[in-house]
Amino acid sequence: MSDISRRSTRLDQYVDRYAARTEGMKASEVRALFSVASRPEVVSLAGGMPNISDLPLDVVGKGIADLIAHDGPVAMQYGSGQGTPELREQICDVMRLEGIEAHPDDIVVTVGSQQAVDLVTRIFIDPGDVVLVEAPSYLGALGVFRAYEADMVHVEMDEHGLIPEALEQAIAATKAAGRTIKFLYTIPNYHNPAGISLSEERRPEILRICREADILILEDNPYGLLGFDGRIHRALRADEAEGVIYLGSFSKTFAPGFRVGWALAPHAVREKLVLAQESATLCPSAFSQMAISRYLENHDWLGQVEAFRTMYKERRDAMISALEDFMPAACRWNVPTGGFYVWVTLPQGIDAKAMLPRAVTARVAYVPGTAFFADGFGSSSMRLSFCYPTPERIREGVRRLAGVLEAEMELRETFGATGTIPAIRASDYDAPSNDLS
Amino acid sequence: MSDISRRSTRLDQYVDRYAARTEGMKASEVRALFSVASRPEVVSLAGGMPNISDLPLDVVGKGIADLIAHDGPVAMQYGSGQGTPELREQICDVMRLEGIEAHPDDIVVTVGSQQAVDLVTRIFIDPGDVVLVEAPSYLGALGVFRAYEADMVHVEMDEHGLIPEALEQAIAATKAAGRTIKFLYTIPNYHNPAGISLSEERRPEILRICREADILILEDNPYGLLGFDGRIHRALRADEAEGVIYLGSFSKTFAPGFRVGWALAPHAVREKLVLAQESATLCPSAFSQMAISRYLENHDWLGQVEAFRTMYKERRDAMISALEDFMPAACRWNVPTGGFYVWVTLPQGIDAKAMLPRAVTARVAYVPGTAFFADGFGSSSMRLSFCYPTPERIREGVRRLAGVLEAEMELRETFGATGTIPAIRASDYDAPSNDLS
Repeated sequence: MSDISRRSTRLDQYVDRYAARTEGMKASEVRALFSVASRPEVVSLAGGMPNISDLPLDVVGKGIADLIAHDGPVAMQYGSGQGTPELREQICDVMRLEGIEAHPDDIVVTVGSQQAVDLVTRIFIDPGDVVLVEAPSYLGALGVFRAYEADMVHVEMDEHGLIPEALEQAIAATKAAGRTIKFLYTIPNYHNPAGISLSEERRPEILRICREADILILEDNPYGLLGFDGRIHRALRADEAEGVIYLGSFSKTFAPGFRVGWALAPHAVREKLVLAQESATLCPSAFSQMAISRYLENHDWLGQVEAFRTMYKERRDAMISALEDFMPAACRWNVPTGGFYVWVTLPQGIDAKAMLPRAVTARVAYVPGTAFFADGFGSSSMRLSFCYPTPERIREGVRRLAGVLEAEMELRETFGATGTIPAIRASDYDAPSNDLS
Repeated sequence: MSDISRRSTRLDQYVDRYAARTEGMKASEVRALFSVASRPEVVSLAGGMPNISDLPLDVVGKGIADLIAHDGPVAMQYGSGQGTPELREQICDVMRLEGIEAHPDDIVVTVGSQQAVDLVTRIFIDPGDVVLVEAPSYLGALGVFRAYEADMVHVEMDEHGLIPEALEQAIAATKAAGRTIKFLYTIPNYHNPAGISLSEERRPEILRICREADILILEDNPYGLLGFDGRIHRALRADEAEGVIYLGSFSKTFAPGFRVGWALAPHAVREKLVLAQESATLCPSAFSQMAISRYLENHDWLGQVEAFRTMYKERRDAMISALEDFMPAACRWNVPTGGFYVWVTLPQGIDAKAMLPRAVTARVAYVPGTAFFADGFGSSSMRLSFCYPTPERIREGVRRLAGVLEAEMELRETFGATGTIPAIRASDYDAPSNDLS
């Protein structure tokens, strides 16, 4: 019995019993897409999966075999809610590359950095509290804030990242409205989805504004080591220990399948995070942590990151040259200097979400811009990812996308608007359809 | 710099900014104990760590080596938020042992069953909602309910488990007070901490009462396969598919270090749980799930559970005979038929929490009964675990405990009460003290 037929024949007898926060939990547009866009014939420029095919499986295998043989009973046992001391030491070494001097005692290991966002939100957010987020922002974080019933206020970015004046204005306006701002959530490096980085000049300004307004910064930095010129930006946390919670992850520098990320927090906050982690999971997986420790110890992991950077740079180049070669003149995009994503702005009046089913029919997928806003903005934008498909596939995907877009623009020119084609809901994608194959 | 000195020299500048729920996150008494009771000279009858020293490391190692060599790039990649289809199929086979017929589509894999408790609570509980819990109940679950600002109402148990009449009365009284009951949290088999099982006769009664009162049951069953006579109780879920969310775990039948548990839920609820899981972690570890799948597939895992049962039975026997040999006549305890725990009731007036520092000084640790109540009850009870120490150590631990208890009773007889010795707070244990070494 397919998913859809089961659902349609069953009523949810619990519909009146869910918590208020459950209202805010909706299937994300990316998730809905996965089921369609994962078909081999579709070029997915939608997902954010790292390409880990070049990882040295022999090294990983050897490290884990050794782990099981020598420390198996420890690795397979319950561990500390805060994470293993060894990995927390190694995390300090990783963060030192970004100018951070930290004590392992101030780190909490999490189930991917997604869980770090969840735990920080859990300890700080009451319903109705405000979180400042970039415009656009990471959809997985927006989903967490929504699930804890936070209100999100977007702050504008330009090609140099978050705009200090816009941040000041947003803070002033939010405070004037009598609202409580709990923190600023920011991705300073190789932004998801915007693909841009906060300039060096602005970093002290952002820190100063938040310090003066007494606003905590949640610095999410999964892509920080993936700058294509090998340059590593100095973390905000490097210059402000008490006002910043820094989130890191091994998902992009090693592999996501172990689900290991971390939060570095001011000491008092760290204590709350450990309690929240124990309540949420008792402890993160000792096995996963020890497997990563061995990898970091036995392998030139930074050399591997260098190889990742080179590979992603090639893919970025493939995407940018394809965009230049194929996309209609009225489209705009940035050229990211690291990370996974390009943010594309379409000609005015083109609705990226409404266009998506036609794109998938043409065997290319992307994430519509609205997914990255809490307020419905972003309709004429899209996120294209270049991390997972090969350069050839990326070029072919962009070619297909340009074709769909041209048809859309023609249709619009002929009929005035695409408004007659109904906007789709993400849930529509749960139903496989022959149109899409 | 030690933990305590760092803490005492730093003020928490965030103290006014935490969410209301963070108030409810306190260091558990078990957690505080771990730092003291983990010293080798202390016999810890406090923890709930399974003894996994007999696991076949070669089998585990071979399975994982094969996993990395053949499916490494999949195992190390992001996976489904719901869990791998293969493991969910295998989980159905595991649950079939308890009479459950389920579809893999209705299972959500979680980061240990602790996370299943967290996610179910997240989707159902608004602040002030009531959760019915046994008296006593699992402290890790009480912590979750507290963190989501639920009110807990305890329902009495006797040697046959939850008392149907007490459940009916609790429901009636709670409803009469105008309160909303969201679910009953119950551990029907080899209860933590009470060590007892719900009788076969009462199971349909409990189901009927909850069905008639339209109350969801959260059936937590980590110990179900660890019955010492090899008998497997029929799950509540086996006879009620729509009114029960069943939680299972590989932590006690295999190993906790991979952090893999699950929830089996009515279909509509399962959809919410997947959304909650995606928000919390994006997805559980594919590597952990695939490692467990290989173990289940390659090994006589049920034979291993049989070996665990035999080993735990020996330890139960060691504890019971030591209790009989050493404990003062006025003490009472049950004889568990499975699981990890014995619940001991002390002579009236003895405060198990106040006695704990003296027990640890005498190199034995336990968990005071109050940890398992939301309302301060349980002061003259304690949980003793027989899962981790060897039979010899268990006997020695109980001998020491009996000595401490006799001294306490003498003191009480001489001076009338122990009330002059101040009750301790769990946080006191964070400070290492020479008294305890």
